[in-house]
Amino acid sequence: MPQNKFDWQRGFTLDFSALDGLSKGAESTKRRLSQMQDMYADGEAARALVEGGDPLVYEFYELGTPEHPGDLAFGTSICYPGKVGKEYFMTKGHFHTILDTGEVYYTLSGQGYMLTESPEGDVVAHQLEPGKAVYVPKRYAHRSVNTGDTPLITFFAFRGDAGHDYGTIETKGYRKLIVEGEDGRPKIIDNPKWKK
Amino acid sequence: MPQNKFDWQRGFTLDFSALDGLSKGAESTKRRLSQMQDMYADGEAARALVEGGDPLVYEFYELGTPEHPGDLAFGTSICYPGKVGKEYFMTKGHFHTILDTGEVYYTLSGQGYMLTESPEGDVVAHQLEPGKAVYVPKRYAHRSVNTGDTPLITFFAFRGDAGHDYGTIETKGYRKLIVEGEDGRPKIIDNPKWKK
Repeated sequence: MPQNKFDWQRGFTLDFSALDGLSKGAESTKRRLSQMQDMYADGEAARALVEGGDPLVYEFYELGTPEHPGDLAFGTSICYPGKVGKEYFMTKGHFHTILDTGEVYYTLSGQGYMLTESPEGDVVAHQLEPGKAVYVPKRYAHRSVNTGDTPLITFFAFRGDAGHDYGTIETKGYRKLIVEGEDGRPKIIDNPKWKK
Repeated sequence: MPQNKFDWQRGFTLDFSALDGLSKGAESTKRRLSQMQDMYADGEAARALVEGGDPLVYEFYELGTPEHPGDLAFGTSICYPGKVGKEYFMTKGHFHTILDTGEVYYTLSGQGYMLTESPEGDVVAHQLEPGKAVYVPKRYAHRSVNTGDTPLITFFAFRGDAGHDYGTIETKGYRKLIVEGEDGRPKIIDNPKWKK
């Protein structure tokens, strides 16, 4: 995690550009394709992209919120446009470690989906566009998917002690994927790599 | 509270225009000057404005979030431009009933301040402008003040069970006010109506 230091006791302000999602006052966490390449269905396409320069897939802010149930983690998430084979660029996605905590996102720019999935297998894909807020309820894993041609930029907030469980998604995968269909539009399909 | 019904179990999306702050999918809560006129220092100016049409000072969204520590309340707050005498239009402001819960705001449009104050009297005025996020820490009362010529529009999030304690502010007032100074710029002064 970047060393971002803020005054959580007396409060603070921090800039997040609505145009590119970036902050001048904090350092982002960056995820390149090589850090998540097994998550994509088309392994050959993923390898070729990594070898060809390892593109930045997404970045987001971790501000060092105290892990306290009364504090809130917040910042922007920027998922860049692109595809691995037919599959759109996406974030890793995660459950919260404290499963019974929700998260809210407000879309500042771009087009895409918030793909959510409960442990029991209920899958809901919420469509995002500028001005659209999405409520990710308690217990649902969530992943941003950029189906557009520009960065998908959201502002997020969740409880300071919620935590991130990336492991379940890395091990089992998501049940569903979002890919470009033959008509050039996004399509939700079963994930061939999903493990029960 | 307006009867806004959403699916907090499976999640939902809701539009909030970044231009005017309003949602087509939910009903806002509106606060006219008559509902808070005693909060302003210049009683005569307040009475004249109420009699002259009772302007809408601010509106915001209450979506009916479950009062559960794992859920999040969110929406936009729109504080309109205007003054009561020399004092800028502002929201009522409140402590959270569960004092140990924070709140985050992201500024979508407009100019102003998030005026915050702890029970012990620590006052911090955070300047807001488009793209600026502000973290209101646990224990601090918070009020938006519009010092510009256009609506001050923020997107907010806080814990579902935090609750609103308006009474303390209504009874005691804030220690500080934000007024237009002789140079036409915002100035923070002691509140003559504040009660220990």
